[in-house]
Amino acid sequence: MAECIAVVNAGSSSIKFALFDDGPDLPQLFAGQLEQIGVAPRLTVTDPAGERVLENEWDPKEIDHRAGASIILKTAIGLLGGKPIAGVGHRVVHGGTSFTAPVIVTNEVIASLKGLCPLAPLHQPHNLVAMEAIRTAAPHIEQVACFDTAFHQAQPPIAQAFALPRELSDSGVKRYGFHGLSYEFVSGRLRELDPDMADKRIIVAHLGNGASLCAIHHGRSVASTMGFTALDGLVMGTRCGAIDPGVLIYLMDERGMDARKLEALLYKQSGLLGVSGISSDMRTLRASEEPEAREAIDLFVYRITREIGSLAAALGGLDGLVFTGGIGQRDVKTRSEVVGGCTWLGAALDEASNGKGEMRIEASGSRLPIWVLPTDEERVIARSTAALVAA
Amino acid sequence: MAECIAVVNAGSSSIKFALFDDGPDLPQLFAGQLEQIGVAPRLTVTDPAGERVLENEWDPKEIDHRAGASIILKTAIGLLGGKPIAGVGHRVVHGGTSFTAPVIVTNEVIASLKGLCPLAPLHQPHNLVAMEAIRTAAPHIEQVACFDTAFHQAQPPIAQAFALPRELSDSGVKRYGFHGLSYEFVSGRLRELDPDMADKRIIVAHLGNGASLCAIHHGRSVASTMGFTALDGLVMGTRCGAIDPGVLIYLMDERGMDARKLEALLYKQSGLLGVSGISSDMRTLRASEEPEAREAIDLFVYRITREIGSLAAALGGLDGLVFTGGIGQRDVKTRSEVVGGCTWLGAALDEASNGKGEMRIEASGSRLPIWVLPTDEERVIARSTAALVAA
Repeated sequence: MAECIAVVNAGSSSIKFALFDDGPDLPQLFAGQLEQIGVAPRLTVTDPAGERVLENEWDPKEIDHRAGASIILKTAIGLLGGKPIAGVGHRVVHGGTSFTAPVIVTNEVIASLKGLCPLAPLHQPHNLVAMEAIRTAAPHIEQVACFDTAFHQAQPPIAQAFALPRELSDSGVKRYGFHGLSYEFVSGRLRELDPDMADKRIIVAHLGNGASLCAIHHGRSVASTMGFTALDGLVMGTRCGAIDPGVLIYLMDERGMDARKLEALLYKQSGLLGVSGISSDMRTLRASEEPEAREAIDLFVYRITREIGSLAAALGGLDGLVFTGGIGQRDVKTRSEVVGGCTWLGAALDEASNGKGEMRIEASGSRLPIWVLPTDEERVIARSTAALVAA
Repeated sequence: MAECIAVVNAGSSSIKFALFDDGPDLPQLFAGQLEQIGVAPRLTVTDPAGERVLENEWDPKEIDHRAGASIILKTAIGLLGGKPIAGVGHRVVHGGTSFTAPVIVTNEVIASLKGLCPLAPLHQPHNLVAMEAIRTAAPHIEQVACFDTAFHQAQPPIAQAFALPRELSDSGVKRYGFHGLSYEFVSGRLRELDPDMADKRIIVAHLGNGASLCAIHHGRSVASTMGFTALDGLVMGTRCGAIDPGVLIYLMDERGMDARKLEALLYKQSGLLGVSGISSDMRTLRASEEPEAREAIDLFVYRITREIGSLAAALGGLDGLVFTGGIGQRDVKTRSEVVGGCTWLGAALDEASNGKGEMRIEASGSRLPIWVLPTDEERVIARSTAALVAA
């Protein structure tokens, strides 16, 4: 009987999952998410056609991340109707410097990953709780950890370095970069579609609620806008992106902010939400006629174009641009505005192709090819998991 | 009898001054500095030929910034042998959002500038102490405040914005940019030398112990690498430049650092000094054979080339590059390495011209003209002071 691969992506208030047939091309069977953990937990599952096949709600007191992971495992087993689960793959935000590729989860791996929690305190613990819950409930199922940082470990050390005292850098304070599973997928997809282009100097813009850019050459990460944490780089839904470190010292001195208040401010109250005062959601801002909504969008786009310049420098020139992520795949105007800011790099948009969301959206005279490629982090995790549990 | 203009630049441990004849072209008469205030105060003065004409030392307990400023005033009066001082111009680091041009110092101006001290706590108070000491000692002499931020007030708001909640931005937490007096001088010098070029899209690299880049179009600042404080942007002698804001939260949580420790770390122990573990001085690092010295230099250069890409994006393309500041004017290898990182922008160096420190150093085939232009912040201050006290 064919086996299946389950993928679990545990975030701060939700756990997403997807089930794949462990056969050629890994066809996806079901996908679902347990949302609003701690508030109003609600599980929804859809089939490959997008039809809702299951829905359930719980009292928030009954469901924490650990219980949520067990529910997802049970739900998966039920959905699969007896097909065994060959492996569970997890998205893990931080692999530090030692995890440069997916690994089978062992006690030692869990211990190492716990040691990295200070590097991603808002995300990493949830990833590990899900892993441990499934390990306890079904110790016979192999699990695989796939890292959002791993793709960037190919970067040259200079791209990863901060100009901080050596002792701090040696202890792990460096630019890791995130969204690596997305970049791995998109880079692989580009190789399927256009092998020549996949070896050239490409910037991939992963624009979603979290957002970053990655400079890729020969399919390997050369530099990224995200740094040590998921705060740096681009303007995001509620995160500030790059700011002067002196701002934090000022806020400590003048506003009496401590680490928790700074964290709340910079992770939750800044970005599109902070600038607009309206919403963290690009769709809401696009629909708004308030000038503050426009200012937030303009800053989002401006910082993307500035960072594209910086990454083009890291690449020593640019041969192609790829949009992905929720905003990158769906917001026609963001793509149009970003490309408008890259005219000096030889980018020109075909507005009709862009409006229709085609895969190639550059104008015929554009020096740069421009792609829109949907990302699929779950599939990357499923592939790595299938490969490792089969080995 | 011809009058004179005095210029005072009060830093954290030194006060520099220069005296100019208030005639056509403002010929410089004397220049000097009181160094090592609080440690081993020592005054040296040179004439225009660079000959030392005066030298003096004090017990550190006798000299603070206030006493130092009075000594400099008395010394200036003595050196001028009876020629009256028409005005004293001060370099003031921070003019906030309201001071966009030099102003005559009044009680109201001093009060406003004191209100900006939280924005530049390590520099602004010293500027003001010198101003007040001279005002007390010689109330009849007019003083003028010239701002390192003023040149950048021409930037579009989007270049100055952080993606922080609106209330913070409105309260003044934004990118100000510094080294404005240097950029004003260099931009003016370029206009004298090549008026057409001065209206094009130029990046000026002010590289010294403090370092920043400024994107200039039509002689106006479009964007700069320095932000809210003098910490952001490029790697500097002892300052970190751009780092992920999450690093500060991590250091608070994991190392128990408070604002003063973070300030000491990021302002005094980072940059070239922190990465090399050897020195903050580029000359020392160039002379060293330790790999750590090389790493520090490489990171300094790499970050410059990345930020040149980012500023080229702000300009929508690049037409010329100018080096200035201690390192920019004197370090042949830094210029060579930075230009090497800008090949993709059409820059090519003439190694011979560069080696000789000529004013134009691009190769004959270079799309970009490349200049080396010595800066003279004191002269900019003297000009503004002469103009305002004459008005």
